[in-house]
Amino acid sequence: MTGSIVIAGLGPGADDLVTPEVTAALAQATDVVGYIPYVARVAERPGLTLHPSDNRVELDRARHALEMACGGRRVVVVSSGDPGVFAMASAVFEAVEAGPAGWRDLDIRVLPGITAMLAAAARAGAPLGHDFCAINLSDNLKPWALIEKRLRLAAEADFAMAFYNPRSKSRPEGFAKTLDILNDACGDDRPVIFARAVSTPEEMLQIVPLSECTPVMADMRTVVLVGNSTTRLIERRGAPIVYTPRAVAP
Amino acid sequence: MTGSIVIAGLGPGADDLVTPEVTAALAQATDVVGYIPYVARVAERPGLTLHPSDNRVELDRARHALEMACGGRRVVVVSSGDPGVFAMASAVFEAVEAGPAGWRDLDIRVLPGITAMLAAAARAGAPLGHDFCAINLSDNLKPWALIEKRLRLAAEADFAMAFYNPRSKSRPEGFAKTLDILNDACGDDRPVIFARAVSTPEEMLQIVPLSECTPVMADMRTVVLVGNSTTRLIERRGAPIVYTPRAVAP
Repeated sequence: MTGSIVIAGLGPGADDLVTPEVTAALAQATDVVGYIPYVARVAERPGLTLHPSDNRVELDRARHALEMACGGRRVVVVSSGDPGVFAMASAVFEAVEAGPAGWRDLDIRVLPGITAMLAAAARAGAPLGHDFCAINLSDNLKPWALIEKRLRLAAEADFAMAFYNPRSKSRPEGFAKTLDILNDACGDDRPVIFARAVSTPEEMLQIVPLSECTPVMADMRTVVLVGNSTTRLIERRGAPIVYTPRAVAP
Repeated sequence: MTGSIVIAGLGPGADDLVTPEVTAALAQATDVVGYIPYVARVAERPGLTLHPSDNRVELDRARHALEMACGGRRVVVVSSGDPGVFAMASAVFEAVEAGPAGWRDLDIRVLPGITAMLAAAARAGAPLGHDFCAINLSDNLKPWALIEKRLRLAAEADFAMAFYNPRSKSRPEGFAKTLDILNDACGDDRPVIFARAVSTPEEMLQIVPLSECTPVMADMRTVVLVGNSTTRLIERRGAPIVYTPRAVAP
């Protein structure tokens, strides 16, 4: 039996946002590895072993998955959203590069998923309808100065922005600093979308002008979208539509 | 009968990358509207009218869809990839904002899809595994000077980059200029991925150092991914794995 490792994206939460490709990979798996709440989304069945693990042990989890694949298992590493966007794919490849030579020749595939910013954008309208950037606001693995530099340059480039991991309990101050930088750098009152747990029963969407945003509007389950200078609101019954036009005048 | 309009992403090409949510919306549609090759991906059935239209008539198409929804039809506007990423969602909302007041209160939903850059990144490894940006290189709807400004700022921010619409037959020179700017601004020989028609029978993936890239490597079916300064190649049998590590040293 030849082992394999699939790094699969489960999408933002709803079952009907899981691609059939990922569903098929899970149906053939012998082992599913991942962060506890993501593994909890995979149905148990005979012949499948679930290996949930805690947050912040991504490299250990990746090595465990690679070892099992080397031993002939069909392993699926699950991420929420897309595995290549601030998720498990990079961690697995870091482990491959640092690991035994045999790991490089494993059958390794990455299966894309609906990442949080696209699910959130769809709920709000089309705020990312023009050029945009995605920034992980956690400074666990990079210096805060780099985040700040990227925020200022992204504002200067007039990108719409998507922020992942905006605010954790252990590091609540980064998002407050982010809002200060944006208020300073953007020079206008553009729309900001706080999208929490999109497509789950806990989904919550808030649309707030930049100057009225407060740090507590975000937590680790929130993705934050910031429009560019041309982003518009269409008022109507219920929540407005937020969208960024395709054209920029010369 | 109450009409509705759904703006749905069909993903990059393969059927098993279409979300069940989009499949369900198509099954309930009375009318499907979109660019000819995307409408061609929808199976004909009794009760469903297909309305394929040519490229560059996005606003006309959007108005047609909205008019039919106002008339009580269940309309699905199809895009490839994700409808909110350089696709039909913004065009529909432009039409809504400029159109009759009644269009604002239609039942309008956007259903996300697997956008080309994420499908391409998954094939290559995890090149977008850290902060990144997405830029549409077409200057049909924005001045070239803005594209050039964004490219230089994105390089300064050390974003990995994804380029949509890199090169059209009518405007072949923009991508050549893009490569010149990147060679000048990046100051190193980072990996570039040319991913054409990912997940279709015509799929082709090329991994090329920046200094060896030539404009003809891209066409309108190609998405181009450029690593950041830390992006790495893992050599192995067959194509190397390209990934961007999660950590940046202080």
